[in-house]
Amino acid sequence: MKIGILTSGGDCPGLNAVIRGVVLKGTETYDLEFVGIRDGWRGVVEGDFFPLTRHEVKGLSKVGGTILGTSRTNPYEGERGGAENIAKTLADHGIDGIIAIGGEGTLAAANRLANDGINVLGVPKTIDNDLKATDYSFGFDTAVNIATDAMDRLRTTGDSHQRCMVAEVMGRHVGWIALHAGMAAGAHAICIPEVPMSIEEICELVSSANARGRAPLVVVSEGFTLSGMDEAYSDKGLDAFNRPRLGGISEILAPEIERITGIETRSTVLGHIQRGGSPSGFDRVLATRLGLHAADAIVDQAWGEMVSLRGTEIVRVPLADALIELNTVPRSRYDEAAALFG
Amino acid sequence: MKIGILTSGGDCPGLNAVIRGVVLKGTETYDLEFVGIRDGWRGVVEGDFFPLTRHEVKGLSKVGGTILGTSRTNPYEGERGGAENIAKTLADHGIDGIIAIGGEGTLAAANRLANDGINVLGVPKTIDNDLKATDYSFGFDTAVNIATDAMDRLRTTGDSHQRCMVAEVMGRHVGWIALHAGMAAGAHAICIPEVPMSIEEICELVSSANARGRAPLVVVSEGFTLSGMDEAYSDKGLDAFNRPRLGGISEILAPEIERITGIETRSTVLGHIQRGGSPSGFDRVLATRLGLHAADAIVDQAWGEMVSLRGTEIVRVPLADALIELNTVPRSRYDEAAALFG
Amino acid sequence: MKIGILTSGGDCPGLNAVIRGVVLKGTETYDLEFVGIRDGWRGVVEGDFFPLTRHEVKGLSKVGGTILGTSRTNPYEGERGGAENIAKTLADHGIDGIIAIGGEGTLAAANRLANDGINVLGVPKTIDNDLKATDYSFGFDTAVNIATDAMDRLRTTGDSHQRCMVAEVMGRHVGWIALHAGMAAGAHAICIPEVPMSIEEICELVSSANARGRAPLVVVSEGFTLSGMDEAYSDKGLDAFNRPRLGGISEILAPEIERITGIETRSTVLGHIQRGGSPSGFDRVLATRLGLHAADAIVDQAWGEMVSLRGTEIVRVPLADALIELNTVPRSRYDEAAALFG
Amino acid sequence: MKIGILTSGGDCPGLNAVIRGVVLKGTETYDLEFVGIRDGWRGVVEGDFFPLTRHEVKGLSKVGGTILGTSRTNPYEGERGGAENIAKTLADHGIDGIIAIGGEGTLAAANRLANDGINVLGVPKTIDNDLKATDYSFGFDTAVNIATDAMDRLRTTGDSHQRCMVAEVMGRHVGWIALHAGMAAGAHAICIPEVPMSIEEICELVSSANARGRAPLVVVSEGFTLSGMDEAYSDKGLDAFNRPRLGGISEILAPEIERITGIETRSTVLGHIQRGGSPSGFDRVLATRLGLHAADAIVDQAWGEMVSLRGTEIVRVPLADALIELNTVPRSRYDEAAALFG
Repeated sequence: MKIGILTSGGDCPGLNAVIRGVVLKGTETYDLEFVGIRDGWRGVVEGDFFPLTRHEVKGLSKVGGTILGTSRTNPYEGERGGAENIAKTLADHGIDGIIAIGGEGTLAAANRLANDGINVLGVPKTIDNDLKATDYSFGFDTAVNIATDAMDRLRTTGDSHQRCMVAEVMGRHVGWIALHAGMAAGAHAICIPEVPMSIEEICELVSSANARGRAPLVVVSEGFTLSGMDEAYSDKGLDAFNRPRLGGISEILAPEIERITGIETRSTVLGHIQRGGSPSGFDRVLATRLGLHAADAIVDQAWGEMVSLRGTEIVRVPLADALIELNTVPRSRYDEAAALFG
Repeated sequence: MKIGILTSGGDCPGLNAVIRGVVLKGTETYDLEFVGIRDGWRGVVEGDFFPLTRHEVKGLSKVGGTILGTSRTNPYEGERGGAENIAKTLADHGIDGIIAIGGEGTLAAANRLANDGINVLGVPKTIDNDLKATDYSFGFDTAVNIATDAMDRLRTTGDSHQRCMVAEVMGRHVGWIALHAGMAAGAHAICIPEVPMSIEEICELVSSANARGRAPLVVVSEGFTLSGMDEAYSDKGLDAFNRPRLGGISEILAPEIERITGIETRSTVLGHIQRGGSPSGFDRVLATRLGLHAADAIVDQAWGEMVSLRGTEIVRVPLADALIELNTVPRSRYDEAAALFG
Repeated sequence: MKIGILTSGGDCPGLNAVIRGVVLKGTETYDLEFVGIRDGWRGVVEGDFFPLTRHEVKGLSKVGGTILGTSRTNPYEGERGGAENIAKTLADHGIDGIIAIGGEGTLAAANRLANDGINVLGVPKTIDNDLKATDYSFGFDTAVNIATDAMDRLRTTGDSHQRCMVAEVMGRHVGWIALHAGMAAGAHAICIPEVPMSIEEICELVSSANARGRAPLVVVSEGFTLSGMDEAYSDKGLDAFNRPRLGGISEILAPEIERITGIETRSTVLGHIQRGGSPSGFDRVLATRLGLHAADAIVDQAWGEMVSLRGTEIVRVPLADALIELNTVPRSRYDEAAALFG
Repeated sequence: MKIGILTSGGDCPGLNAVIRGVVLKGTETYDLEFVGIRDGWRGVVEGDFFPLTRHEVKGLSKVGGTILGTSRTNPYEGERGGAENIAKTLADHGIDGIIAIGGEGTLAAANRLANDGINVLGVPKTIDNDLKATDYSFGFDTAVNIATDAMDRLRTTGDSHQRCMVAEVMGRHVGWIALHAGMAAGAHAICIPEVPMSIEEICELVSSANARGRAPLVVVSEGFTLSGMDEAYSDKGLDAFNRPRLGGISEILAPEIERITGIETRSTVLGHIQRGGSPSGFDRVLATRLGLHAADAIVDQAWGEMVSLRGTEIVRVPLADALIELNTVPRSRYDEAAALFG
C-alpha cells in the first residue's frame, strides 16, 4: 500500500514526530510505502507529492514544525477540489489512502472525504486542546511550558516594579492554555473565553493581590471578551476600548486595569513563540505514539477513524465524533483554579 | 481543624506545589489551619511542627524540592514511634489529621496508621511512575524532560565522534523514565528492568544503528540487569563485569558494548539532576490539583484515602489500593517503543 | 561603615546577584554593615531603608529582578530631594555611602551627587548594552539568550507555513540585542536604530531569502525607524503607516513586508519576557564579580567611580566617563553580521 | 581558491556555527570554494573531502556538534602523514589551504604544518577555556550554562534532604568551568586543579555551610587532585581512596566528606551533557564571528595565524602564541570566588 501523509492548519510542536512515527512503523513493521503531501489539502488537490522514506524522517522527533508544510486550503474548493477529483488524483499517483494530521477543520474535511469514499485516517492536532475526542493532543504541553516559563519571567519584573503584568496566551475559543499556564505560574486572575468576567471583577482580583503585597499576574486567552465590553463602550462612539488595530485583548485590559486600580500595568502577547520550537518530552511521546498507532490503523484499514488519547492509552474513534462539540474548560475546572486567586 | 503536612522519601519536583495547593485552598476556602511537619515521619514521631500559613507557601508552585524537608524514617520505629505514641503526639499539638505526600513506602505507612486509627490522607509521589493507583504523579514529567534534554545533547556529541552513547536514567524497579525519554530522544535501544535483554541483543541494536550511519543511543534504567549477567561472569571469579564500586549499570554496559561491537562507547549517569529544580508546567498543574483536592478530602474526612489522577480527573482511591502492585511497563508499551529501534 | 544599596531604572537579570556579591564580601571580608534602599532614589529621598544582612541575600544569585524594588525617581526632584537634603537623610540614618546600581540616568544622578559631596559608587546596569564605559553589563547576555530561543521557535513556524517572521526585541537607542540575537538565530535581516534602512531594502532581503527557499526572519530593535517613514506617509495625511497606538515597530513592518513582497508575514513583540527570570551563567558571574569589586571599592573609598568590565577584568572608571557617549553598534559590527544576510 | 575545513579533538557547541560563518562569508563575499574534511586530520591524511556549499551549512548556527566529524588523529603519524605527503594530497585535490578548528593539540599540529609550508589557519576551540591566546572560545559559555542549570537542580534536592551535593564538571587541567558555574550557582566550595586543597579544608567549608543551615554544594573539576591524597593512602596499601575504576574525583570526595563531616553526601558527574546540544547565544555569536574573520584571514593569506577574541574584538595572533602557556585560573580569580564560600 502507498499512503500519503499531510499536515494542515496552524503548525504545532510534534507534527514531525507523528510523521516519523507513522513512517518508521509503517515501513519497518508493515512494509508500507509513503509519500509526503505538500502544504496540507493543497498538495492533495494539486497532486504535489514526494517520496517519504525512513531517511527523510531521521531525527525528527525533536524538530518543531512540519517538514511537509501546511496550509489552510479546503479540499472541496477550487477547480481540482472535491472528492471525485481527489479520488482521481490519488489513483493517478497510486496512493491508497491518506493520513490527515490536523485540527477541527482538517478532521471535518477528512470526515467528509471519508464519507465520500476516500480512504482517510485522522490524527488530531490541537495546541489549544479544543477537541473533545482526545484527552490531550501534542503541542498543548509544549505551549503550556513555554507560557509558564514566560510568566515566571514576567513575575520577577512585576515584583521588582510592583507592577501588574498581563500575559496573553493562545486560545481563541477555549481557555486551556491560560488555565494550565496560569495555574502553573500562580496567576492571580485567569480570563478565558468560557467564563465571562467584567473589568471590575478582574480589577478586584488585581487589587486584592496587590494589597497582599504581590505583583498581580493576569493571564488571558486571546479569545477572552470582557463581559459588557461592547455595550459599555458603544455609547462613547468607540470601537470597544478604542481597540488598537493589531493589538490583542491584553492590550485592551492593561490600560483599563491601570486606570481603575491605579497600579502600573504592562501587557505581553506571547504570540507565535508558543507554537514553535522543539516539543516537550510529553508531546514527543504522545505524537510518536499517535504516529505508531496510525500506522497500525492503516493496516487495519480503519478509514474514517482517528487515533486519540484516553487516559494513558491510544484508542480509535470515528472521525465524526471528533466534530460534535468543542472541548471547553468546564466550570468545575475553572473554579478549581479560581480557588487560588484570592 | 488543624492539619499537619509532611513529605517523605526522595524529593521530587512538585512537592512544594502540592503543599501550596493544600494550604491555599484549605485556609481560604475552608478556614483550616495547617502545620508543617519537618522531615517526613521523623517530624511526626518527634513532634517537630511549625505553623504553615498562606505566607509560607507564597510563590512555591515553581520551586523544586520541599520546604518541609524529607527523610526515610519509618513511623513505626523508635521509642516514640507507633500509632499509639503518634496519636498522643498529634493530640498534644492539637493536630486533627495528617496529609502524607510520598511514594510506596510512605503510603504503606500512612495506610497502616489509618488502619490504626490515625487520620491520614495520602498524596502519591512517584518520580519513577511506579504506582498503579494513579495514571501519573508529579515529578515524572519533569524527569522525562530533563532526561530528554540531556539525550538531545548526548546525540550531538555521539554524531560528531561516531560514538555510541549510553545514558542511564532513574528507575530502580520500573522503566517508565527510560521508556518515555528514550522514545522522545529517538533511542536505538531502551533497557528497562521489566524486559530482560542480553548484551548480545543490545549490541545487535547498536551495530544496526551504526550500520545505518547513526550514532547509537542506548537508554538504560538504573535498575536494568543484563540477562545472563551473573552466570556468565561468575566463572571468571568476578563480581559481574568487574563492576566498579560506585558506578551504575551504564558503566558496565559501555565497555562491554565497545568490546563487542568495536564502536567507541561512552556512558553518562544523569543522576540527581533528574529529581531537582523547577517542575514542568504539567507537573505544577498536576501537583497543584492534587493539593487542592487533598484540601477537599480533609473537609470530607476521607481518611485512609489518597487523591489520584485518572485520565484528566482527580479522584480518590483507598490507600490500600495504592499498594497492591507496582506499575510496571507493560510488554505492549515496550514493544510499541521497540518498533522504532531497528 | 554603613552602606546603602539601591537599584534604579528598569529591572534586569543579575541585580540580585550584585546585591548578594556586595553584601557577602562586604560583611564577611570587611565587616561592613548594609541597608537596603527601597525603590531606587525614592528610598534615598524618603529615607526608606531596611537592614540587609547575609541572611537576606541567601540564594539570590539565580533570582531575577531586584529584592530592593526599583523606580525611576530623580533624586534631585521633590521636596526632600537634592544633595543637601539627601546628605542630611543619610546622616540621620548613619549611612556613610551609597552603591547605586543602574543605567545611564541612575549613573548620571550618582555622578551629580558625588560632585555634590555625597559618597556614591556606581555599578552599571544596561540590558541594552548601551554604556560605553563597560564591555558588557549583566542582563544583556540573558536577554540575548531569551531572544535567540524565541527566534529558534519562530523559525520552525515560519518554515512550516513559508512565512516571513518579524521579531521585535529590546533596544530603544542601540541595536545590540537585535545584532547578537539576530546573528545567533541566523536572521536574514537585522534592523537597528544605528543603521537606516528603507522598507524596500528590507523587502529585498526578505524576497532574496524566500527565493532561496528559506522562511525569512527579520529581527528589529524596538527603536528602529524606517528611513523615509515620516516623509513617505505624511502626504497621505497619516501618522506614519497609520501606526497602531500600542503596537511596536514590528507591527508596522509586518503588513508592509507582506504587501510589498507578497509573502505572508507575522510579527511578534518579545517584550517584557526579555528582562525577567533567572540570569544566564555569564550574567550571574559578571554581576557577582561587579558586586565583589564594589565591596572592595567601598573600602578603598573610591567614591565617584564605578566598577566595569574590560576584557575579562573588573576595573574602576570615573562615573563621569560612563556618561560621555552611548555605546552604539559600530558600522563594522553591523557589516560583519550583514555578510550573513544575503 | 579552494579551502578545506576541519574540526579536530573533542566536540564542542559552536563548531557548526564557525563552519557556517566561514562558508557563508567565503562564498558570498569572496567567491571562495570550500571542501569539508572528514574527521579532523584523518581526513587530511587520507584525502577524505566533500564539497561544502552554502546549502550544507544552512541553519547550522544553532546545531551542536560538527557536521564534519572529528577525531584525535595526529597528521604527522601514519604512512600517509607528514607535511610532504599532506602537501601532495592537498595538491592532488586542488586544495589551497586549510582552516583547522581545534584545541591545543590541533593548533600545535597546525603550527607545525604551517612551519613546514602548508597553508593553515587556526580557529581556537576550547570548552575548558584553557588557551591563553583568546579571552574565551565558544563552547565554554554553553558548558557553564548547562553546569549552572544542573547545580540549580542539585541544590533543591540538597536542601530537601539536608545533604551535601558534590558536582563534578569538565576541566582536566584548568578550573574555569568549575569556577564560573560554582560562582553562578553559589557553591560553598570550588575545587580546581590550580589550587591544592586537602579533604580537611573542603570539609571545613562543608561543615561551615551546614552550620549556617545551608545544604552544602561542592563543585569540583574533573582534574582536581586532593593535596596529600597519594601519600595519605599509600600507607594503607590502597590506590588512593580505593578509587573506583570508572568513577571521577567526585566519587572519591563524596564518601570522604560524608565520613568526616557526618553529613549525608551525594555526587553527580555531569559528563558528556556539558559538551553537547545547541550553543548559547554568546557561543553562537562568538563562533560565527570567528568564522567570518577566518574567511577574511584566508583572503589575507594570514597562514600560520589564528583568529581570537580580545575584549569585544576578533583579532589575529600567530599560531605559535596559542601554544606557549595554559590559561590557568589565576589565584586572584580563585580568591575572588572564595570570598563567597564562607
